[in-house]
Amino acid sequence: MMDKKIKLVLSYDGSIYHGWQIQQNAFTLQAVVEDRLEKMLGVPVRVFASGRTDAGVHALEQVAHFTTSSPMDPETLCKGLNALLPEDILVKQASYVSADFHARYSVRTKAYEYRILNADAPDIFQRNYLWHIRRRLDIGKMRRCLSTLVGCHDFSSFKSAGSENRNPVRTIHRAELFSGNDGLIRITIEADGFLRHMVRNIVGTLVEVGRGKMTATRFVEILESGDRRLAGPKAPARGLFLVTVNY
Amino acid sequence: MMDKKIKLVLSYDGSIYHGWQIQQNAFTLQAVVEDRLEKMLGVPVRVFASGRTDAGVHALEQVAHFTTSSPMDPETLCKGLNALLPEDILVKQASYVSADFHARYSVRTKAYEYRILNADAPDIFQRNYLWHIRRRLDIGKMRRCLSTLVGCHDFSSFKSAGSENRNPVRTIHRAELFSGNDGLIRITIEADGFLRHMVRNIVGTLVEVGRGKMTATRFVEILESGDRRLAGPKAPARGLFLVTVNY
Repeated sequence: MMDKKIKLVLSYDGSIYHGWQIQQNAFTLQAVVEDRLEKMLGVPVRVFASGRTDAGVHALEQVAHFTTSSPMDPETLCKGLNALLPEDILVKQASYVSADFHARYSVRTKAYEYRILNADAPDIFQRNYLWHIRRRLDIGKMRRCLSTLVGCHDFSSFKSAGSENRNPVRTIHRAELFSGNDGLIRITIEADGFLRHMVRNIVGTLVEVGRGKMTATRFVEILESGDRRLAGPKAPARGLFLVTVNY
Repeated sequence: MMDKKIKLVLSYDGSIYHGWQIQQNAFTLQAVVEDRLEKMLGVPVRVFASGRTDAGVHALEQVAHFTTSSPMDPETLCKGLNALLPEDILVKQASYVSADFHARYSVRTKAYEYRILNADAPDIFQRNYLWHIRRRLDIGKMRRCLSTLVGCHDFSSFKSAGSENRNPVRTIHRAELFSGNDGLIRITIEADGFLRHMVRNIVGTLVEVGRGKMTATRFVEILESGDRRLAGPKAPARGLFLVTVNY
């Protein structure tokens, strides 16, 4: 039987998981998905995602692939998997892809969204999907800072200390802030790739500006400095969503 | 020190609780609220709510009261309680009320909302707050059935078997269905009171009509029959919200 490659589009609520990537003695999304795939296909399956997401981070559309010799068609596999998966993981789509597709290496761009609730009262029903900030944020200043990120930059200032030592240059195609009447602020960043904790470090620093603790000029200086120690604290994981992966 | 009566407006996510009302060996909302109040005030406190909510049922605005000799003002109490309460319970407001106010006996009307997601795909992030129904529902028929409920009726057909044997006559002031493009259906019912599981039994039967398993005429017959055995199955708790309590 010839091996086929199947692409999965997954949505998940990362609240109770120790992130995507499989680890010894940790409850991870990858481990759960691989376990259910093994139940469906009868053999162990290794799943490759577009990238890891951290503990508590969610995905509207994560993409992953695996290779199988099973004759089961993608649609049947999708339904079967959803019947086996817990309620906080959903396979939105399964389809055949060509042998040269790779969920991680074929990525063209990825987009993340960060959600902030800027209001007096928290929204208890959205508590795992928002960063609740009481103090009124200066949206205009935050937007100006965001716009300076677009383009090709060395993002060393916004990578986490423990991140792998690879090329820190990334190209941001889109960096936008949407603000609603209900206090909901959505920050969307699309780039050809992200350094470890990059979105959360950017948002944490943006919020320092929004709170008036840092000037917009200082934000630009931090970006240009390449020095992580100057940036603001990392925003909480719970507000972050992997929104789309483009190939 | 003269005793004062304090009214609380509470919002809670009922997902992990065994309902509002305190019970032996069960994790209930009332037990948690009373425990935190005791921590604040230094003495045991009994809290009276407008009514119990069942396991898994939520509240946007539940109302409760208690009596205390503490000089602590309501605003301080509110902030202190919120600092002690878990993230799924919020005190939205605390205020003094007159001695003749009673959270349960002074109720004029209460409103519940039931949320259905009528779409192919579930919303995993709202899984505890919706009843997900794949099959397309006939909204027009459901609306017609709802409208027949308005007014004064014997609701015995829609009370649960184990409910207390009290007067089954209630007056429904408002029974509406809102349907959005995203498949979200919200059913709002306001009445002078509700029998046990009344909203969930009504919604479960409405959905039978929406699914085409029951005619609208049959729905009216069931209401008039007073026979619980004729009604549809009870809708799941997770879609139900206590929205407001009016005094």
